[in-house]
Amino acid sequence: MKASSILGMLAAAMAGMASAAEPAPIAIAVHGGAGTISRELMTPQREQAFRTKLEEAIRAGHGVLTAGGTSLEAVTRAIRILEDSPLFNAGKGAVFNAAGQNELDASIMDGASLDAGAVAAVHRVRNPIDLALRVMTHSKHVMLIGEGAEQFAREQGFELVDPGYFHTEDRWQELQAAKARELTRHRDPEKWLSTVGAVALDRAGNLAAGTSTGGLTNKRWGRVGDSPIIGAGTYANNDSCAVSATGTGEFFIRHVVAHSICVRVAGGEDVASAANAMVNEVLAAAGGDGGVIAMDGKGNIAMPHNTPGMHRASIDRNEVLFVGIYRDEP
Amino acid sequence: MKASSILGMLAAAMAGMASAAEPAPIAIAVHGGAGTISRELMTPQREQAFRTKLEEAIRAGHGVLTAGGTSLEAVTRAIRILEDSPLFNAGKGAVFNAAGQNELDASIMDGASLDAGAVAAVHRVRNPIDLALRVMTHSKHVMLIGEGAEQFAREQGFELVDPGYFHTEDRWQELQAAKARELTRHRDPEKWLSTVGAVALDRAGNLAAGTSTGGLTNKRWGRVGDSPIIGAGTYANNDSCAVSATGTGEFFIRHVVAHSICVRVAGGEDVASAANAMVNEVLAAAGGDGGVIAMDGKGNIAMPHNTPGMHRASIDRNEVLFVGIYRDEP
Repeated sequence: MKASSILGMLAAAMAGMASAAEPAPIAIAVHGGAGTISRELMTPQREQAFRTKLEEAIRAGHGVLTAGGTSLEAVTRAIRILEDSPLFNAGKGAVFNAAGQNELDASIMDGASLDAGAVAAVHRVRNPIDLALRVMTHSKHVMLIGEGAEQFAREQGFELVDPGYFHTEDRWQELQAAKARELTRHRDPEKWLSTVGAVALDRAGNLAAGTSTGGLTNKRWGRVGDSPIIGAGTYANNDSCAVSATGTGEFFIRHVVAHSICVRVAGGEDVASAANAMVNEVLAAAGGDGGVIAMDGKGNIAMPHNTPGMHRASIDRNEVLFVGIYRDEP
Repeated sequence: MKASSILGMLAAAMAGMASAAEPAPIAIAVHGGAGTISRELMTPQREQAFRTKLEEAIRAGHGVLTAGGTSLEAVTRAIRILEDSPLFNAGKGAVFNAAGQNELDASIMDGASLDAGAVAAVHRVRNPIDLALRVMTHSKHVMLIGEGAEQFAREQGFELVDPGYFHTEDRWQELQAAKARELTRHRDPEKWLSTVGAVALDRAGNLAAGTSTGGLTNKRWGRVGDSPIIGAGTYANNDSCAVSATGTGEFFIRHVVAHSICVRVAGGEDVASAANAMVNEVLAAAGGDGGVIAMDGKGNIAMPHNTPGMHRASIDRNEVLFVGIYRDEP
């Protein structure tokens, strides 16, 4: 027998012992959007508010997992907290479209069954991630849009909120600024592509991913980005990985980014290298800005972004907490 | 020098000679939906009408290619003919949703640039494939939906038709039958998942794919299937292949079918085996009914379906015409 074979058997035996001694890993990661934000334009108070809310979301999601909850429950719990905060472009903090409306998209996917749910262009659903989950669990369909999706929500007992619920003064001023720039043909000085998302691994070894967004400020014509598109903004498969994306959605759709990362992982690439290749090579070469959070079936986490910042947080399989905003944070 | 190297050089030289002697290949394939239709339920007249229209569409698309047109032009030309026919569930022949409306989806993708366009839930656009193309060529976006998409159409000078244009008696009776079955909880006796699509390769070596549909009879809640989803129902990349799908859309979304076939081809699998694996192994195992048309960069065509029938036609790189409906046609 060759020495390498003996070493291989030893390694396998040790891995077996480790798995017998330790509980199966759990892990979770969230993002709150990627963008060109720089330290110069961020106040210390605002930065702290982001970090505090990201930590609240990641701890809540992790709490679901430690209590034996599913990755789907952890993902929705974490995303709901980000949706309910006015800081992020999803739910309460959604940006305004050109018509002065808040138009919300979300999707979720179960890595165990490949079941998925998505909603687009809803205006009165407080937590679009909950509706995406309900589409997955209580309809035969994957994607419902517009008034039809809200009708489904009503039939499912969701309480619809007045569209005014989503009105925040900051976002309203962003719309006015965007319209003014449109008139003067100035480019957006601070392109912040915020969206929220989460990926998680539960004790049963199941992965899940979810994404929720208000889309683009001043968007027109019922534009839908990658967030509600299974394969582009969200994908999960226990055999490979779970991914949630944020960025210039059109590029993420064309390159089917979330699915592409999972295909690479299924082919034997590690999740960090697969996610990095799609974000910093394929998307960067195409001109697509943004990032992803990705997690494989062992709870390994990657959070690459090709923008100066990405709001993100994680609690890894060793229970180590990380919260970051800028690219140079480890 | 090894014999294998010399053989390799000889083969490369011969391939070069062949390409110098012959013009670059062109090819096109179309589908008009897959389903459980059986010869017993089809009248000879109706069968002939389908074959005639499929041949008209494939010849028109091929004519674009022989005249030096692009694969995008060929795909849209062929799909427009199928949309304008009341025989197929797209454009004029679209099925009715539960509210008695015709609700149309379409998408298109350019394999050279990975540019893509898609529209969903439009009610007044005569040829949704044209609008999908316009979204691709005249907006920064990939996907526009609902009234917003129609507003974009108006701004682009599209003449919107009265929704009554899409009313055909056959489809209306299908809706009434579906509603009656719903009441009696009978299952649909003839599940025909029709949608139309095309893939083409032009003289410049560029692939394109497009898909157009009226969705499901009696569909509710703004349900969107795979047809307007880039990656699921439509994908094209010069480096791999072009695909248009038809079937139970939810399964095609979960398995990102069109993109998955292209990823396999990019990995070295031939297009016939890649398309067959997704349709007859992955989808069939998951319970997804339907089929695809797929074409690689050399003009090789695959049209696998796991249903008893799929309306389909092709003119291959040797200018051989094929028109088929049932699975046992070669």
